[in-house]
Amino acid sequence: MRWSQMFIPTLRDDPAEADAAGHRLLLRAGYVRRLAAGHYSLLPLAVRVRARIIGIVREEMDRIGSQEMLLPELHPAEPWRRTGRWESIGAEMFRLRDRRGADLALGVTHEEIFTTVARELASYKRLPQRWYQFQTKFRDEPRPRGGLMRVREFTMKDAYSFDLDQAGLDAAFDAYRAAYLRVFARLGLPVRPVEASGGTMGGAESTEFMCPSPAGEDLIVYCGCGYAANVERATSRLPEAADGPGLPAPEAFATPGVRTIEDLASGFGAPGDRQVKTLVYLLDGVLTLVLLRGDHALNEQKLIDATGAAAVRPADAAEIQEALGALPGSLGAVGVTHLPVLADEALRGRRAMFTGANTDDVHLRGVDVDRDIPVGTWADLREVAAGEPCPRCGAPLQVEQAIEAGHIFKLGDRYSRALGAEVLDPGGARVPLVMGSYGIGIERAMAALAEVHHDERGLAWPPAVAPFQVVVTVAQTGDEAVTEAAESLYGALRAAGVDVIIDDRDERAGVKFRDAELTGIPVRVTVGRRGVAEGAAEVTVRGTGETGKVAFADLAGQVGALLADPA
Amino acid sequence: MRWSQMFIPTLRDDPAEADAAGHRLLLRAGYVRRLAAGHYSLLPLAVRVRARIIGIVREEMDRIGSQEMLLPELHPAEPWRRTGRWESIGAEMFRLRDRRGADLALGVTHEEIFTTVARELASYKRLPQRWYQFQTKFRDEPRPRGGLMRVREFTMKDAYSFDLDQAGLDAAFDAYRAAYLRVFARLGLPVRPVEASGGTMGGAESTEFMCPSPAGEDLIVYCGCGYAANVERATSRLPEAADGPGLPAPEAFATPGVRTIEDLASGFGAPGDRQVKTLVYLLDGVLTLVLLRGDHALNEQKLIDATGAAAVRPADAAEIQEALGALPGSLGAVGVTHLPVLADEALRGRRAMFTGANTDDVHLRGVDVDRDIPVGTWADLREVAAGEPCPRCGAPLQVEQAIEAGHIFKLGDRYSRALGAEVLDPGGARVPLVMGSYGIGIERAMAALAEVHHDERGLAWPPAVAPFQVVVTVAQTGDEAVTEAAESLYGALRAAGVDVIIDDRDERAGVKFRDAELTGIPVRVTVGRRGVAEGAAEVTVRGTGETGKVAFADLAGQVGALLADPA
Repeated sequence: MRWSQMFIPTLRDDPAEADAAGHRLLLRAGYVRRLAAGHYSLLPLAVRVRARIIGIVREEMDRIGSQEMLLPELHPAEPWRRTGRWESIGAEMFRLRDRRGADLALGVTHEEIFTTVARELASYKRLPQRWYQFQTKFRDEPRPRGGLMRVREFTMKDAYSFDLDQAGLDAAFDAYRAAYLRVFARLGLPVRPVEASGGTMGGAESTEFMCPSPAGEDLIVYCGCGYAANVERATSRLPEAADGPGLPAPEAFATPGVRTIEDLASGFGAPGDRQVKTLVYLLDGVLTLVLLRGDHALNEQKLIDATGAAAVRPADAAEIQEALGALPGSLGAVGVTHLPVLADEALRGRRAMFTGANTDDVHLRGVDVDRDIPVGTWADLREVAAGEPCPRCGAPLQVEQAIEAGHIFKLGDRYSRALGAEVLDPGGARVPLVMGSYGIGIERAMAALAEVHHDERGLAWPPAVAPFQVVVTVAQTGDEAVTEAAESLYGALRAAGVDVIIDDRDERAGVKFRDAELTGIPVRVTVGRRGVAEGAAEVTVRGTGETGKVAFADLAGQVGALLADPA
Repeated sequence: MRWSQMFIPTLRDDPAEADAAGHRLLLRAGYVRRLAAGHYSLLPLAVRVRARIIGIVREEMDRIGSQEMLLPELHPAEPWRRTGRWESIGAEMFRLRDRRGADLALGVTHEEIFTTVARELASYKRLPQRWYQFQTKFRDEPRPRGGLMRVREFTMKDAYSFDLDQAGLDAAFDAYRAAYLRVFARLGLPVRPVEASGGTMGGAESTEFMCPSPAGEDLIVYCGCGYAANVERATSRLPEAADGPGLPAPEAFATPGVRTIEDLASGFGAPGDRQVKTLVYLLDGVLTLVLLRGDHALNEQKLIDATGAAAVRPADAAEIQEALGALPGSLGAVGVTHLPVLADEALRGRRAMFTGANTDDVHLRGVDVDRDIPVGTWADLREVAAGEPCPRCGAPLQVEQAIEAGHIFKLGDRYSRALGAEVLDPGGARVPLVMGSYGIGIERAMAALAEVHHDERGLAWPPAVAPFQVVVTVAQTGDEAVTEAAESLYGALRAAGVDVIIDDRDERAGVKFRDAELTGIPVRVTVGRRGVAEGAAEVTVRGTGETGKVAFADLAGQVGALLADPA
């Protein structure tokens, strides 16, 4: 490839739109352009990186016997209606009508559609099956951001496993888990597998592959002992509360001007861990009280997971006033029987607590949770904070931002039951398939790689995913001997199977060096006048900046060695 | 690959839905499954064929310096509005709104979106550019049919060229034309390049690559001399009409019961070629008379191309009655000045003609077209019929059904002007880019290959596109020596770089033979008891049915030779 003929529109300045370091560089280095919020055009360099990522993922899928398919992107509503997700996936799903008025959806994921194909399996003799595809997904994100990180259309490698029973699913899950770890290792993307929430996917167990990065939108909680979970799922070990006996009954007291946990703590000697915080949510339209300890924060995904609600939002002040007769600041659940009450596990058995009285500027003390509050459902609702004790070993937990690079799910038979995907088992009984699903976002992987592998001068791709492994830079394009030597090296590298581009542009060497660093090609081979006189080229490793002279004759061999071990 | 582990759901019987021979076989042989009308799932064998087709197309694109990109599928309305195609492409375009209410379209093609990227080219120094992608297109077809032939979503290799001037476009067009011919030759798809209508794409010149097949939806007209055109574009040489002088003025006569050209011919001695046929169309809402010789048929695409109308339909009887005061059967254009009149070139200068009088059951004779009919626009509107003289050499033309396998267009500056994609020319002036566009439907190519390469027993892929090149059939799975010999051959073929599958299923040999033929794998290597005793396998070529014994030791070499030259 010749740089002079390729479309690599590098930019001198940082584009205004970029909200993450890697994305800024993908724009500046001429990899991507924004068509609209959440929709990006991949230019030639990005297509090459994407193809390398896809190649690695495909190899690892094939290795575990997963078979590639390609299912439609535009779906009839019917299978989505049968699983209930036509309703439960809300505005995130792009919907449209065809010329006959039939309802269609753009696939946000493909459990339903793969399951319709799996209906043909019919017998346990055809199991297990593992299927995958690289296919576009569409999600009407409320706030597309981070360039390729959170977009409205993207390529997903999604895979599905179909087994006769839970043991089969467990084996498939383990195989995909191992394949994912190999994929991310080969891509050069450091990931931590963490326990995760299944979200709208349902299912009992799921693992996310999280790449630590300040550009990440997720928080993960982990410990040196190996414990790791998404904050949506993480727990911590709390010290036992040693509450003394409280009052025989709750006692109201005036708290003029008290609006917050902190107000009550500072003004009335009620520390946060002795308060019951009362939040009011609408869960699928039902007003619900959600109780946490005063110094704890709600994790909304835990609330969703605990209730199965599809539409979740905090109630507004008017709704709260109408239901409880008071405004936020003085709310409580004591004696409330006309609304469902959910409470976080940390409140179990607590006594002598403080809470609002559902009268403005009045609170209660001496509240005994089990005695005074009609809790309908106990659940783990609180968000773990850094420093809390690990649930396994008790050491202080750490929290960091991370990019979700992959997510795998044990689905069970939710989809196969709803869609009638059954097989005959060895005993002749019809049983629903036991399913798993497994996803990697391809362009997000590219974005994550850009976040992880860059410095102030530009991108720095690992050789396995770089658009080109080597750039041969012609330092003086006007000099015939230099051009001839560079062309000859370019030919030799190509002949050796190296994926190489020659920067033959009529530009100053400085411009070419800058673009080589910006675009992140792992190895630069510079051919200039002095080098030609000495019969040597200058070889620079992008990742480390190391530079050395290599005789023309040794070049192909040395470059091969560098690419195999770029550090 | 092991057949026992792959998902190849072959069917014993012909599926009901199939409306073309190749499609029936793609269903029966377990390549595709229908999700909904116009939406197909590609199963593992089809994905392999698709990947081979894509590989060949990619190589030929890269060879002419075309660079791969990937642009979004979901488009904002704005660029489509600027080129006028938001309106001119009607119900064929799937449209939707996002959660904010913004109008979006699913890409039917990508001229607009590639042109927005091309705005960045800025200077002639960056030209020429040739860009392509493999991307899904969506078209809300009124009648999806032929399996993969006419669907609502499909992968297109679409390419675009950007040049400074017409000479640059001509060179790009020639390069893509040559690349397309190489692609189809390598795929094993016989095509004929024909002149074609640009349709809604616009532009001055276009060429279709037509694969003759009874499953084709197009008609092409061709001649031994090399002339070839889509019937939407084809012309023929008509003998000069030697009309005698007619009457001084048209003369009305009663024609009770006459409704058709044939009625007037048989009842009143007015042969079809002496009649003026009057059709009434609504062109973008404007009622228009369309005149042809009585024995000629209108080609609607020619009418569209001649008028540029986006919405075209025949007027109904009520609309006609209201505008002309008569019903079809007695219509004419003599003296009509309140409606636009379009006439086919074959009517120019004709005299002493017959036509309707716009009074039911009355016709006119002695009509002199130039004298009596206020023709506003002359155009080539008639559809050429088989046997008419070739416009180049005069020999009788032939007409055949064909599948459109590719289509290339010289677009000019229509899109670049509308979207402001301009560059500075060497003189410093801003000029719009001169564009071409170039498309191949990938799954349609697969469908066309299935139509061309099959027999009554199944598919018969050319080796270059086959899902596997060789199947090693284990004739007696229960026999250890047979299994061992087959596995050893399978390993040897794999080691030799042959793409091979082993049919290791616990099935009768007959079932395996039938499936090997049905799925169309080019070479079958059968290992059975007798062969093992002799140290030889049976090698069968799918295309020719030829069978021979080959010693185990010679097998890899012989198979390689067969694949290189399967005939």
